[in-house]
Amino acid sequence: MSEKWCRFRLGSTTAYGLVEDDEVAEVSGSPFDSYTLTGPRHPLDSIKLLPPVVPSNFWAAGPNHRGHIEAMAARRGQPPTYPTAPSPNQRAVNALIGQGDDIVIPKDCSGAVQPEGQLAVVIGKQAKKVSKEEALDYVFGYTIGNDISQRVWQQTDRTLWRCKNADTFKPLGPWIATGLDPTDLRIIVRHNGEVTQDFSTSEQIWDVATWIQELTKYMTLSPGDVIWMGTQGADGDMVAGDVIEVEISGIGVLRNQVVGEG
Amino acid sequence: MSEKWCRFRLGSTTAYGLVEDDEVAEVSGSPFDSYTLTGPRHPLDSIKLLPPVVPSNFWAAGPNHRGHIEAMAARRGQPPTYPTAPSPNQRAVNALIGQGDDIVIPKDCSGAVQPEGQLAVVIGKQAKKVSKEEALDYVFGYTIGNDISQRVWQQTDRTLWRCKNADTFKPLGPWIATGLDPTDLRIIVRHNGEVTQDFSTSEQIWDVATWIQELTKYMTLSPGDVIWMGTQGADGDMVAGDVIEVEISGIGVLRNQVVGEG
Repeated sequence: MSEKWCRFRLGSTTAYGLVEDDEVAEVSGSPFDSYTLTGPRHPLDSIKLLPPVVPSNFWAAGPNHRGHIEAMAARRGQPPTYPTAPSPNQRAVNALIGQGDDIVIPKDCSGAVQPEGQLAVVIGKQAKKVSKEEALDYVFGYTIGNDISQRVWQQTDRTLWRCKNADTFKPLGPWIATGLDPTDLRIIVRHNGEVTQDFSTSEQIWDVATWIQELTKYMTLSPGDVIWMGTQGADGDMVAGDVIEVEISGIGVLRNQVVGEG
Repeated sequence: MSEKWCRFRLGSTTAYGLVEDDEVAEVSGSPFDSYTLTGPRHPLDSIKLLPPVVPSNFWAAGPNHRGHIEAMAARRGQPPTYPTAPSPNQRAVNALIGQGDDIVIPKDCSGAVQPEGQLAVVIGKQAKKVSKEEALDYVFGYTIGNDISQRVWQQTDRTLWRCKNADTFKPLGPWIATGLDPTDLRIIVRHNGEVTQDFSTSEQIWDVATWIQELTKYMTLSPGDVIWMGTQGADGDMVAGDVIEVEISGIGVLRNQVVGEG
């Protein structure tokens, strides 16, 4: 059975909830420890969806699709270099925004801010030295990430700190779907309605189970931790007024609009 | 006035407390929002000190002392390359340990695990686009970090994910001292009692205020966020049984022992 878990704000309340058709059933507590259904049900369009989780450890697969590596290398006029082992990056939670929030293009950047549709894995149980075979037992569910990237800074930011983690550069949501098989999910990015990325998680260089195995060789993953799984291909620049949608089969559509910094 | 804030565990209680001589005055709440003194006072040697904060965003200055850059380059037989602009790294909270906890050398690494004494800045107020002149107003206090690094992995880990963030590689503590001037603090590392690093924060390439200014140009810092300020020089390998102490004037001594992975 697939459940859809959201986190939302309504008035002064911030809570987790179960999305059921056009309503959200509010809970107290969180799906990562314990929770109880509290009774209130809210129309989905009456609440503000928040990033469904704020991870303690926020990992990203980095280059994990050959087509993305090739597209980025071609732009630089260089031959592609494929990774020989999983090489995780980190992302920073200051950059998280939720469904419908503005993606803000910083005033002092040159433009060249681009979307990347990604599957986001949400961990459900503490995990250390987990085998590939057991790895998916430690997953709570899956949500959608848009790994916004400033491509000029990306050439000079030694650690990708700014090009990937400027405020609002990490849209996440709209909710976490449980019970999915992550090995063949379809990911579609629409830029003002036009399809700019359309790929499958089956094309990943290393799959979800492998990334969990590799990370947990050295590092403990905790409930609510998140791993972004990389993107395929490459989209063009976003400008103020654009709308970016990332759709993943079985989860939904993450939609955000672009504004310039005020 | 300088206060010393710790976080501790005693029985089933985890709480913040004020260190006063050999006692800790327990509080409810946290110094990062609001708190009240709850009455109980505990002998300092009766409590387990925890990392004094678990940051939402965990930044590190990376190379920020010329002597460290030169020492590391000399080991590689290369000329030193100095950074031309602040280039922050991230660290991961899975790696945090507190005063007296074991530093565990992973079984499948080649050794070459080394300490780095560092000043750790703890943010007290939400900060975005903060000027250098105002930057220190956003600091809650300072604590001590030991930026444990596996030097062989450091040559191949593109993003330093594993060489810096393996579990137990980020000792932090023993507590946060408020009211300090960060511009000339003395940092001493003792490896089994022998001084292996002895330097001043006055030797930083970019000071605390500059790092806060640079980070907050693009990224919001929140209460409890942490910035590690880099190290000077370079120490040798640690082996099981070693004791590493990092002392910073006005804060105290962070002490951890080394064990091999069981």
